[in-house]
Amino acid sequence: MSNIKKVVVVGGGFGGVAVAKQLSGCQTIEVLLLDKRNHHLFQPLLYQVATAALSPSDIAYPLRSIFSKSPNVRVVMGDVVDIDRSNRTIILEDGGRFGYDYLVIAVGARHSYYGNPEWEENATGLKTLNDALRIREKILVSLEKAERAETPEEISKYLTFVVVGGGPTGVEMAGAIAEITKKTMVEDFRKIDPKDTRVILIEGGPRLLMQYPPELSVKAKCDLENMGVTVLTEKIVTDVKSDRLFLGKDLKEEIVTANIVWAAGNEASSLMTKLNVELTRSKHVKVRPDFSLPDDDDVFCIGDCAFLTDAKGVVVPGIAPAAIQAGKYVSKLIKSRIKTGKNTHPPFIYFDKGSMATIGRAKAIAVVGPIKLSGIIAWLAWSLIHVLYLIDFRSRFAVMFSWIWSFFTHHRAGRLIIYVRRRSLDKK
Amino acid sequence: MSNIKKVVVVGGGFGGVAVAKQLSGCQTIEVLLLDKRNHHLFQPLLYQVATAALSPSDIAYPLRSIFSKSPNVRVVMGDVVDIDRSNRTIILEDGGRFGYDYLVIAVGARHSYYGNPEWEENATGLKTLNDALRIREKILVSLEKAERAETPEEISKYLTFVVVGGGPTGVEMAGAIAEITKKTMVEDFRKIDPKDTRVILIEGGPRLLMQYPPELSVKAKCDLENMGVTVLTEKIVTDVKSDRLFLGKDLKEEIVTANIVWAAGNEASSLMTKLNVELTRSKHVKVRPDFSLPDDDDVFCIGDCAFLTDAKGVVVPGIAPAAIQAGKYVSKLIKSRIKTGKNTHPPFIYFDKGSMATIGRAKAIAVVGPIKLSGIIAWLAWSLIHVLYLIDFRSRFAVMFSWIWSFFTHHRAGRLIIYVRRRSLDKK
Repeated sequence: MSNIKKVVVVGGGFGGVAVAKQLSGCQTIEVLLLDKRNHHLFQPLLYQVATAALSPSDIAYPLRSIFSKSPNVRVVMGDVVDIDRSNRTIILEDGGRFGYDYLVIAVGARHSYYGNPEWEENATGLKTLNDALRIREKILVSLEKAERAETPEEISKYLTFVVVGGGPTGVEMAGAIAEITKKTMVEDFRKIDPKDTRVILIEGGPRLLMQYPPELSVKAKCDLENMGVTVLTEKIVTDVKSDRLFLGKDLKEEIVTANIVWAAGNEASSLMTKLNVELTRSKHVKVRPDFSLPDDDDVFCIGDCAFLTDAKGVVVPGIAPAAIQAGKYVSKLIKSRIKTGKNTHPPFIYFDKGSMATIGRAKAIAVVGPIKLSGIIAWLAWSLIHVLYLIDFRSRFAVMFSWIWSFFTHHRAGRLIIYVRRRSLDKK
Repeated sequence: MSNIKKVVVVGGGFGGVAVAKQLSGCQTIEVLLLDKRNHHLFQPLLYQVATAALSPSDIAYPLRSIFSKSPNVRVVMGDVVDIDRSNRTIILEDGGRFGYDYLVIAVGARHSYYGNPEWEENATGLKTLNDALRIREKILVSLEKAERAETPEEISKYLTFVVVGGGPTGVEMAGAIAEITKKTMVEDFRKIDPKDTRVILIEGGPRLLMQYPPELSVKAKCDLENMGVTVLTEKIVTDVKSDRLFLGKDLKEEIVTANIVWAAGNEASSLMTKLNVELTRSKHVKVRPDFSLPDDDDVFCIGDCAFLTDAKGVVVPGIAPAAIQAGKYVSKLIKSRIKTGKNTHPPFIYFDKGSMATIGRAKAIAVVGPIKLSGIIAWLAWSLIHVLYLIDFRSRFAVMFSWIWSFFTHHRAGRLIIYVRRRSLDKK
């Protein structure tokens, strides 16, 4: 029994699942995969749940099912709150403790509220299914309230939707909200006209989608404006209240709105602070070129809670393909170390497969190496790739069916107000 | 404008939707359809959401979408808390008021806790999507907790599932819980064996499915027992705590369990008490043979909040087909009264299309006139009829696909723990 090594993986996102999958079937390794939730989430499509296009079960899959045929992988639902590296033990919120030989931390990141965590109450982020369902409910309830509202001010408050953050998530959310209000629901109301909805996308930097080439930013802005979205750049949010938000240093500008979606900033999980290692400003762990901690060969951080400039000088981005590559790399490294006992391994090199963001029906942008795409071709590529990467046959099929159906009918199946309770990802 | 008559319909269930559909397009009638929720729910399949087989969007459909092409039907999401008959006005929780010429109340019923409303906290009923998601979460969380539990007592507490009430809902729930634990999830755990799950179905009367012929009750009991369900009859629940329930007069017997589903009793909405008319013990309004209140020609109660023995001496049951028939009857009556001014109308006669209940995979029972069916034939009939009655093409297709997929794979797509907040249907 003593030659069985215990690998504990914290986080069932793209990185954590990749590690556990690679180690599945290894006779000398016992894997324990921990997550706060019971499911793996296909986060790139989360905004589609938030905007009622897809159901939660289309983009989430129970972790247990992923590993039901992997007897050496044990899945436990639990919230890791501390790491005792001197005793090689992780500690759960409910007091549970698990020992490890190797530890892989892949807990991801959360939006950051620029040091104002209280803003979250009125400006929901978009990282979990719970977040997505709460945003969806807010959108739907606001339209209902607008229909019942008495004054033009009140109607305007409910029909104004503000998305903060002009990265891919913000662009996708703004486009999808414009579609749902201005197209999908246009025949549904008698008093209000959903076409009157204002959708405002706010970006602090000089342009949308800063990580893309400038011409694609222009294209995205143009597409959004054609869909009726107001794009504001170089505007910093300085305060958030339940019925409005403020812009600019002296709270000069305000936007009255009942609907704020937060898609700005990025901050690694607060678990990172328990490691007692150097962190970036956004709490990402500065890992060594093999993802290990600077002072610990047996503890690794991968995915969107690690900061690494790879051997070619590229900063590894906090996106799904990078997390998967890191997961595969680290599992290979662990296997080789267990087999050979040696700790020499070529450093990680990130392979950029390209990136893409969707804006709306038949509108997207994509960069693959030197190639820049936009419009319907980018959108078709985006749709195909996202369906292919979905985890099981059933979801692939269900999502494809939902998309084809919505494309032709403009309908969305998920427009249900169910009352989801708030569950913050990062309570500590 | 004065010849336009206002018909207010409270409740977007089978009865209310039937009324609004029949009156859609009538030039002399303006319909206002009110519901606490924004969706029509296909309640007969709700237990499948509770047991993770279907997603909420498969069995619910926004009311607004149903009537988007009916300009004379206005849908408002609101909670009716009082009815001022002398002023022909309904009053909403938020203070909103709407006048009516004709009022149709179709708010349905809720499970009854035999005068112990505090039991609901630990014994969720199954009437809304919110209920279903809470039950689903409880089942999934209990299995997770069992996997982490330390003592046999604790494991047994989490792996014991009690369903109270041996009517169709109770039978369906017990069967589905047995399937999900003993089949679907059998490979997913490492420490516990989901086959060890105890599923106990408790009925106060002498047999299950009292409204069906005795031989079908025997068949259902036999099928359930073959699936591993323990069926207890003539047992009355006398107390419910968070971790156990008591049976019998002197709290003699107790069952330690973290999972209680309540599918017993039936009580009309408390709104009925605001009408100041005679109610049955279960708060159903004793209506006249045309569903009007005894003292009010212009106010009707239909569906599972009304009590009526029809002209042939049959008690109209509280099920979907009866509510739809009542809705059609009442809308016809209102149209004819508006047209002719006369208030003579043949009394309602219920047409019994038969009834059916499903027990599990390829197991169901059905009664159609003198014909009694069971086994796979009844189950196929049940599946076909439920799919046909689902409201739109998309849901029909999605449900059929989910069922066929689950039938062959034993998988269930909805096994996600999302954290749904409790929202009681009847708070007042």
